[in-house]
Amino acid sequence: MSKAASIFDTINTPAVLVDLDIAWRNIERFQAYADAHGLRVRPHIKTHKLPAVAEMQLKAGAIGITCQKVSEAEAMIAGSPEIRDVLITYNILGREKLEHLTALARRVALSVVADNETVIDGLSAAFAAEPAPLRVLVECDTGANRCGVLTPEAAASLAQRIAKSKGLVFGGLMTYPPAGATAAVEAFMTKAKALIEAAGIAVPVITSGGTPSMMEAASAPVTTEYRPGTYVYNDRSLVARGVSAWEDCALTVLATVVSVPAADRAIIDAGSKVLTSDLLGLTGYGHVLGRPDITIDQLSEEHGRLVSAGPIGLSVGEKIRIVPNHACVVTNMVDSIYAIEADKPPAVWPVAARGRVV
Amino acid sequence: MSKAASIFDTINTPAVLVDLDIAWRNIERFQAYADAHGLRVRPHIKTHKLPAVAEMQLKAGAIGITCQKVSEAEAMIAGSPEIRDVLITYNILGREKLEHLTALARRVALSVVADNETVIDGLSAAFAAEPAPLRVLVECDTGANRCGVLTPEAAASLAQRIAKSKGLVFGGLMTYPPAGATAAVEAFMTKAKALIEAAGIAVPVITSGGTPSMMEAASAPVTTEYRPGTYVYNDRSLVARGVSAWEDCALTVLATVVSVPAADRAIIDAGSKVLTSDLLGLTGYGHVLGRPDITIDQLSEEHGRLVSAGPIGLSVGEKIRIVPNHACVVTNMVDSIYAIEADKPPAVWPVAARGRVV
Repeated sequence: MSKAASIFDTINTPAVLVDLDIAWRNIERFQAYADAHGLRVRPHIKTHKLPAVAEMQLKAGAIGITCQKVSEAEAMIAGSPEIRDVLITYNILGREKLEHLTALARRVALSVVADNETVIDGLSAAFAAEPAPLRVLVECDTGANRCGVLTPEAAASLAQRIAKSKGLVFGGLMTYPPAGATAAVEAFMTKAKALIEAAGIAVPVITSGGTPSMMEAASAPVTTEYRPGTYVYNDRSLVARGVSAWEDCALTVLATVVSVPAADRAIIDAGSKVLTSDLLGLTGYGHVLGRPDITIDQLSEEHGRLVSAGPIGLSVGEKIRIVPNHACVVTNMVDSIYAIEADKPPAVWPVAARGRVV
Repeated sequence: MSKAASIFDTINTPAVLVDLDIAWRNIERFQAYADAHGLRVRPHIKTHKLPAVAEMQLKAGAIGITCQKVSEAEAMIAGSPEIRDVLITYNILGREKLEHLTALARRVALSVVADNETVIDGLSAAFAAEPAPLRVLVECDTGANRCGVLTPEAAASLAQRIAKSKGLVFGGLMTYPPAGATAAVEAFMTKAKALIEAAGIAVPVITSGGTPSMMEAASAPVTTEYRPGTYVYNDRSLVARGVSAWEDCALTVLATVVSVPAADRAIIDAGSKVLTSDLLGLTGYGHVLGRPDITIDQLSEEHGRLVSAGPIGLSVGEKIRIVPNHACVVTNMVDSIYAIEADKPPAVWPVAARGRVV
């Protein structure tokens, strides 16, 4: 990164830094790809949880945002008047959440997903007396084995149920595929779309997501919309997959060496309360920039242990920067991040949608 | 647990519940053991991060609390006037943290630890002009391979440096041993104590910690003080070690089933943003109370996947309670917990020291 080391000297550690210049480059790169292929972009805000970064994504050309929980959508909407179109990719259930959902639907263009009749019926009961219907997409499982109907036939059946439900309108099909499942998305969605259209129902949106396969999104031409999340920051897991380089990693953790108890071991003040225990199949808990020889081999809540085959070569008081395994979860660990821009002092930005789990 | 299921019906999920009756029982159990063996108790608040639970521990007989970071101590002290004695078991470095530390030392009886000269010299510079000296204990590595000096000789050397440093007073020896290292603690500390006393310096405190071995703490009689943390709540990792039973687990996560996509799979609304990815050597991310046949085999941020060998037998909308692998890290994921007491409605308690990483 081009920023002078002196910027970091003033920051109390551990701290999460976001390089906005890199983030902007990442946003523009995928938007250009999507524009070239006629794909709409609806970024998932889980990675940044920052209204100001959502505004960067909208400015670049995104049509709206994706959130995972109702409270997350509330925090983002409260944080930016420019957020006017929100998809919540979650089965929403229960009185309290549905009350919040109806309030949100009066403020922005809102869509949600459902993969079962209980959720659809609950949404219908909540929206039956509302001034405008709620758009509901059917979530489809294209290989992730998480939520989603398992077959195009089941998708078509739920689409018909939504279309018949008071207070609801069928909004299309949604999936969160595993990496490399673009062909599976195309096959599932093409079949489901045909079945639903054969029943006389239009399929206005087919939305897919996931950063690892985003640059091949257009090879599933049935897709109309894409929801990348991690692409805005990137992380060690994406570098390991060959999807991005260290220079594309906008989020880093700044830490201080607090102990060097042995020649091959140093302890930093960032543990699982910042880096998290997410491994995503990797060995170690992050990449120390400029020190590929170091492994972060163990975390406790407030300590990170760094080991090396040779001498560790770090001193107590020295600061290091770490690209975490998984950027999204790190964002959720801190009340604020330091926004770094060339030629400006670091700015402290509250993480508006942090901890919004309901 | 004795609480009626109906208590949970009104709680929006995912939610972290703390059964105060169980917590009280856990606190009293260890306090009774410590009292019987002449050990002072200084609980680590990282597990609960709640001033009101620290007050329960003090009421039971604890002499003060342990915190891991300066900001954590600040939040706890701000939350309770009864907290008047705090040990921060961390190497504290850097201008901003040292400024906060001097302010704290004017408010409560404060001790910190150090395992290297750089930290000692920084503390001395910060406290040289303060009205009262800071108590500094030497952190010793008794097998955890994290922080701490490696030999009794190194401990004695640092003790002498502290004793000679302006603004500081030598406070004793501290260790955080791995489970089952009670004999190693006794051997290391006995030798270090003798060396330090031979140099004409008193060793007022020898403090050890860790819930797994707490009920054998007295078999290291050199120890004067013990710092258990997780014991107040317990968790799946401690049940797996045979240290506690499910009925001793005060902290649980309440979640709602949002999808049952297949006969042997259900998805809940609690993912790594509540349960965390901490495995602590276990398989799966938590124990579903009453359903030992279920494995929580995968978490994403907002989804938990439950699988079973036979039919999963759960319905969309159903609530379940989970004992997490690691209670301390779960506490850190939520802005508030629900405090549950027999015959009272659940009370919402802000987690005062959540996210305090600096």
